Amino acid sequence: MSELLARLRGVVGDANVLAGGDLSAWEVDWRKRWRGRALAVVRPGSTAEVAHVVRLCAEHGTPIVPQGGNTGLVGGSVPDDSGRQLVLSLARLDRVRSLDAANLTMTVEAGCVLQRAQEAAADAGLLLALSLGAEGSCTIGGNLATNAGGTQVLRYGNAREQCLGLEVVTAAGDVWDGLTGLRKDNTGYDLRDLMIGSEGTLGIITAATMKLQPRPAAVLTALATLPTLDAAVSLLALARSTLGAGLTGFEVMNAFSLALVRKRFPLLRQPLPPAPWTVLLEQSDAEGESHGAAALEALLSTALERGLIDDTAIATSVEQANAMWHLRESITLAQAEEGPNIKHDISLPVSAIRDFVASTDAALERALPGIRLVDFGHLGDGNLHYNVQCREGEDPVEFLRHEAEVNRIVYDAVAARQGSVSAEHGIGRLKLDEMTVRKSPVALAMMRAIKSALDPSGVLNPGRVLPPPATP
Amino acid sequence: MSELLARLRGVVGDANVLAGGDLSAWEVDWRKRWRGRALAVVRPGSTAEVAHVVRLCAEHGTPIVPQGGNTGLVGGSVPDDSGRQLVLSLARLDRVRSLDAANLTMTVEAGCVLQRAQEAAADAGLLLALSLGAEGSCTIGGNLATNAGGTQVLRYGNAREQCLGLEVVTAAGDVWDGLTGLRKDNTGYDLRDLMIGSEGTLGIITAATMKLQPRPAAVLTALATLPTLDAAVSLLALARSTLGAGLTGFEVMNAFSLALVRKRFPLLRQPLPPAPWTVLLEQSDAEGESHGAAALEALLSTALERGLIDDTAIATSVEQANAMWHLRESITLAQAEEGPNIKHDISLPVSAIRDFVASTDAALERALPGIRLVDFGHLGDGNLHYNVQCREGEDPVEFLRHEAEVNRIVYDAVAARQGSVSAEHGIGRLKLDEMTVRKSPVALAMMRAIKSALDPSGVLNPGRVLPPPATP
Repeated sequence: MSELLARLRGVVGDANVLAGGDLSAWEVDWRKRWRGRALAVVRPGSTAEVAHVVRLCAEHGTPIVPQGGNTGLVGGSVPDDSGRQLVLSLARLDRVRSLDAANLTMTVEAGCVLQRAQEAAADAGLLLALSLGAEGSCTIGGNLATNAGGTQVLRYGNAREQCLGLEVVTAAGDVWDGLTGLRKDNTGYDLRDLMIGSEGTLGIITAATMKLQPRPAAVLTALATLPTLDAAVSLLALARSTLGAGLTGFEVMNAFSLALVRKRFPLLRQPLPPAPWTVLLEQSDAEGESHGAAALEALLSTALERGLIDDTAIATSVEQANAMWHLRESITLAQAEEGPNIKHDISLPVSAIRDFVASTDAALERALPGIRLVDFGHLGDGNLHYNVQCREGEDPVEFLRHEAEVNRIVYDAVAARQGSVSAEHGIGRLKLDEMTVRKSPVALAMMRAIKSALDPSGVLNPGRVLPPPATP
Repeated sequence: MSELLARLRGVVGDANVLAGGDLSAWEVDWRKRWRGRALAVVRPGSTAEVAHVVRLCAEHGTPIVPQGGNTGLVGGSVPDDSGRQLVLSLARLDRVRSLDAANLTMTVEAGCVLQRAQEAAADAGLLLALSLGAEGSCTIGGNLATNAGGTQVLRYGNAREQCLGLEVVTAAGDVWDGLTGLRKDNTGYDLRDLMIGSEGTLGIITAATMKLQPRPAAVLTALATLPTLDAAVSLLALARSTLGAGLTGFEVMNAFSLALVRKRFPLLRQPLPPAPWTVLLEQSDAEGESHGAAALEALLSTALERGLIDDTAIATSVEQANAMWHLRESITLAQAEEGPNIKHDISLPVSAIRDFVASTDAALERALPGIRLVDFGHLGDGNLHYNVQCREGEDPVEFLRHEAEVNRIVYDAVAARQGSVSAEHGIGRLKLDEMTVRKSPVALAMMRAIKSALDPSGVLNPGRVLPPPATP
């Protein structure tokens, strides 16, 4: 192996091959669920260097774990504990290569932090409409490798739908230059979308051309309380038909989510009284503040008349709007303060959500009386972070013994309604077992065939996404 | 072969295996450029029958050409002239299986004619936002197999972006049930988007779950004349920022396009005087007629003030709006009446279009003095149907001798600007040579590896999309 490291140093320079010392920043994932051990961390400075590194690793049969901001939630970007896997960090490929305002596109390197890309777009008076909690440290390459979602999917789609072109280093160490800024291109198979969401197992994304949007003239934010989840589904339909594409956010939170925020962060002001459900609505208006406010007020007063909502508060300043989003984003932290919880990132047809929540809440209560449910998420996309919190004062170790049982109840209920066990976080290593159980064997066979075709020696992020075939 | 036909009759019934007699409806393409000869036409009536047919063909080594409405423009859906290829018509799989209004989705079988699917959505008060000239006869399966575009891509995307899930029969005759109505699903590789646009070479689409949209409260249509193409690009940017997602159509037409319509269809009223360029704008308004009209008028008066447009006409009735679209859609017919022409379906970054048109118009004029250029298309997507019309009175055979030369000039100019030689029509057989010349060898190698992985015996639509590898 020292021969490989020596050759890698020749390619990227001594300072960019880290072996020995504290590598935990690259070896341990964000949630600290996986603590791996890397052969080394290599930090190439250009696409050509990435390709060269891949060729050397392929020659030596050394597996590569590509890594961006290392903010993933499913163990996809940290090495296993064999000490044989090389972490290939894209962090030094962090340039905004170009921005084409007339074409509404920007080309960004994989290691560029999402927030920096957002800022570059804003500097040009435009909007990069990908936004998620980790945006201060996650990178565009990781966003695309995992097809990240976030809070604006309702209007602008996942990372996949915001990407027009890619530059990718293949398993053979070739560079595919697919950096097109075209809205339409029907010349052959859709390699772009195959790479997006493949979590580094089919190729290493080194740069991307992303769609930009005109910046809305005004963004309006409101909270509304509702008696039932049914009412939230009806409010969503009403908001879609009256605001049209202006509706850019629609988040739901159950009573316990906000109660937990109230308990753990008592200084955060909650503008509305406790209610079974609360919705956070965001509207982006192309015309301006007064038009946007009038449209949002009209929507909410219709919803009041119809009995869909009980109470409402519209933010009258950017600070108030940020405070509303802050409530939503504090749920995860409040959960962590409260003790252990079992997280899910599921999606369902919107029409099935009410029934799913009612029957799964009940099934969990039967199985684990007193269990507490933190139901919140992106209702507009059918995506719930349906999290299960330990009972008040329960021993953490005791509680986590129920993880498999809880997952089975939740995922069986998801599967019965044609839902997904990973809406936006991906598979990584965390959900390999679920892939085996839940995914159609025909789909798995096609995925394995594609993996073998594009990475025949299995050098790219092995052991992620695809479970090994069952041994007879 | 008679054994295969007998077995096929056993699967789909005698009446649904057509061999002998006049099969030209299946053997000749819409433009009558390819006249093939089929071993037989088989019309299965269910997904299970499609799978059975594929297994039998695979066993006999008989190539399959899947066919929907047979309206493709690149020779992808008709058999070659060997008499060995089986046409598998999806026409009998034509049901709307379900419509979920709350989830804004519908599940439709591959052979369902696009217009029927649009009507089923409209009956439920919703919009299936895929719209193209052939919608009265093309089918959903063909739309997806070719990733069709059309007139609303600017707002709603290509067929790919409007599809959430697929049911596909694989080359092995297995059925992949990927009919999800989920907006988010990150469980493994994106098989859906790989199948979409693969023109029947990786699998046979038998059904799809499509996104639906709320119906806009009002649709406004206008024409505007402009002094330059530059002004059209500026008007597009202005319309995008002021109308936001309300902008659902933005078509450009050069002076000669409309002059040809005037010459060939003198009874069609043209509301505006001849001008270097004319734009057709469509705005879909979520609020209603009066709000929509006010927004459109405000946009157009700003454009007049800035000198972007010279004159404008807003349709005041559905009939007037239809007449404006009819002008746009009459260009292709006027071209056919005028004599032979060489068609292109190119896309470019919007920022490169002005320069492309100016320099390519000039290059063609140098090469073929007096040549007439029909420049029109979906400017909002960067997609031009940049067609080259014979000189006045020119001998058709003489003119068409220049086809290769014209294509080289046009496609070289496209390639120099990172454009695409097939924006929305696909590759089929027509553009195989361009794939060899224009597509990156790395991309072609990946595509070939995927084809071999998913269709190892090459039974699915062989000879389409992928050119054979160069022989050394």
